Amino acid sequence: MRQAGRYMAEYRAIRARHSFLELCKNPEAAAEVTLQPVEKLGVDAAILFADILLIVEPLGVGLEFGAGDGPRIARPVRGDADVARLNIPDVESSLGFVFDTVTRVKKALAGRVPLIGFAGAPFTVASYVVEGGASREYLHVKRLMYDAPASWQRLMEVLVDATARYLNGQIAAGAEAVQVFDSWIGALGPEDYRAFVLPHMRVLFSRLAPGTPAIHFGTGTAGLLPLMREAGGDVIGLDWRVDLATGWAAVGHDVAVQGNLDPAVLLAAPPYIRKRARAVLDAAGGRPGHIFNLGHGINKDTPVEHVKALVEIVHELSDRR
Amino acid sequence: MRQAGRYMAEYRAIRARHSFLELCKNPEAAAEVTLQPVEKLGVDAAILFADILLIVEPLGVGLEFGAGDGPRIARPVRGDADVARLNIPDVESSLGFVFDTVTRVKKALAGRVPLIGFAGAPFTVASYVVEGGASREYLHVKRLMYDAPASWQRLMEVLVDATARYLNGQIAAGAEAVQVFDSWIGALGPEDYRAFVLPHMRVLFSRLAPGTPAIHFGTGTAGLLPLMREAGGDVIGLDWRVDLATGWAAVGHDVAVQGNLDPAVLLAAPPYIRKRARAVLDAAGGRPGHIFNLGHGINKDTPVEHVKALVEIVHELSDRR
Repeated sequence: MRQAGRYMAEYRAIRARHSFLELCKNPEAAAEVTLQPVEKLGVDAAILFADILLIVEPLGVGLEFGAGDGPRIARPVRGDADVARLNIPDVESSLGFVFDTVTRVKKALAGRVPLIGFAGAPFTVASYVVEGGASREYLHVKRLMYDAPASWQRLMEVLVDATARYLNGQIAAGAEAVQVFDSWIGALGPEDYRAFVLPHMRVLFSRLAPGTPAIHFGTGTAGLLPLMREAGGDVIGLDWRVDLATGWAAVGHDVAVQGNLDPAVLLAAPPYIRKRARAVLDAAGGRPGHIFNLGHGINKDTPVEHVKALVEIVHELSDRR
Repeated sequence: MRQAGRYMAEYRAIRARHSFLELCKNPEAAAEVTLQPVEKLGVDAAILFADILLIVEPLGVGLEFGAGDGPRIARPVRGDADVARLNIPDVESSLGFVFDTVTRVKKALAGRVPLIGFAGAPFTVASYVVEGGASREYLHVKRLMYDAPASWQRLMEVLVDATARYLNGQIAAGAEAVQVFDSWIGALGPEDYRAFVLPHMRVLFSRLAPGTPAIHFGTGTAGLLPLMREAGGDVIGLDWRVDLATGWAAVGHDVAVQGNLDPAVLLAAPPYIRKRARAVLDAAGGRPGHIFNLGHGINKDTPVEHVKALVEIVHELSDRR
């Protein structure tokens, strides 16, 4: 997951000086925020600080981050004419600030831990572009898929192309792995996933620079896991809604998995956190190819000491094996 | 799912004269609304019109239905003292209007189709009581479970007892089956479900009047299905996020299943609805014990003709088998 966030005082201090979008676009500040969890928490990798919607800005649909209520798209894409009107993003020029951030982070890390780059998956990015912001039911997205499948396909092709360039730019700048976040894919049933998403994800993963591991993550995916595996990725991310052992069996033991502690557990007292972290490690059974992680992002009210305690607990329990 | 709703002109006409809570509490109007889908759509069963939160009112936590933004609880239950303060509902007196509605519906149906009673499951009802309304992350609920497990257990016991009495009252008044809606259970991972929900659901199902089939429904449950089966119910409801054949195998073919068309499909044109309804029936494979249904409730913008078309399509395709 993105590691830096409002639960950290260091992050809040920087956010007091920059709007969210400014922070993403300022390589010096974005690099500093990327490094905060490494310095403060002792995690085993840095995760690029960026937003999955940065790639939406060059599409020309009017991305805005309002105060408090999340991203808004001024001109949502709802039909054939809207899709035809999309700009094809020139990723290399319009998102160059992200590659600059990667270069700075790499230099500051000096090889201490690897850097994981990241991007939103085309479906999840498309969901904002079509709905006009966050959604609960994704009805506009589904209506576009069902009633205008050629336009849906075109939208996905535009996003796949831009996302592949974007991730390859991060890899060229030094990211040692990349993570593709399909955060809201769990809104779809397997039949929709197979028809409207899977072919595009296969193209995306096939276009990534070879030799760089790709992590494929989504939430609410317990019914989609075998299809996500089929879509691609060297590591499949599991959220907390599936038993880790069951989820790993569903994707196959010849692929690695990442997960899957419920981030809500971090609100509880450390002895309880320890119990639940141990349960995740037990479900992984010490099998090589398990990357301990949360099942989704950290809530802003989480005590930072609890996150630090979790890192220590996982290190300690993993070393014992 | 609850069948009557804002997508029906007949329902909107009644709602123009009654607030939501008034409608639920007026047996004449609630019976009329319950019957609308039977008359208008030709469905094979009537589903009692009521709200899952009616049972919350006698707890004394201050239930209100605001205009537009859903139910609010004035005094959310967040800790030991709040739980200790709960009223034990006298279901027979405080929810007698629901039993009166059942009696009226039964009389009007005159045996044409069966009547399915319903109630919210204790976890889902508790989620409103603890969060104070609808939620996305259920952090207060999880914190109560993790940090105050004895109070969580007490809250669930109160709700199990009230819900069992409530459903048995509906059965006594004539409901031929009952449905238990654990709408938001998909927020929990399997470990939480096993520890904090399953034992209570077992008690609930064991206390229902014998001989009346019970349907056990939730959404986002692809990772929970074997545990929901273990918890109880003669029919397990499947939402659209799991393949019906896979979901049925997960709960076992010795139990019936209900589901699982994505309600968003009803926004598409009827030929597409037909294609997707057929896919659900194909996944069921003509096996006895499949009840065709949507995977969740009907969206308010759904054209009523599409819902009617679906009923006809399912009747036609099922008769062919």
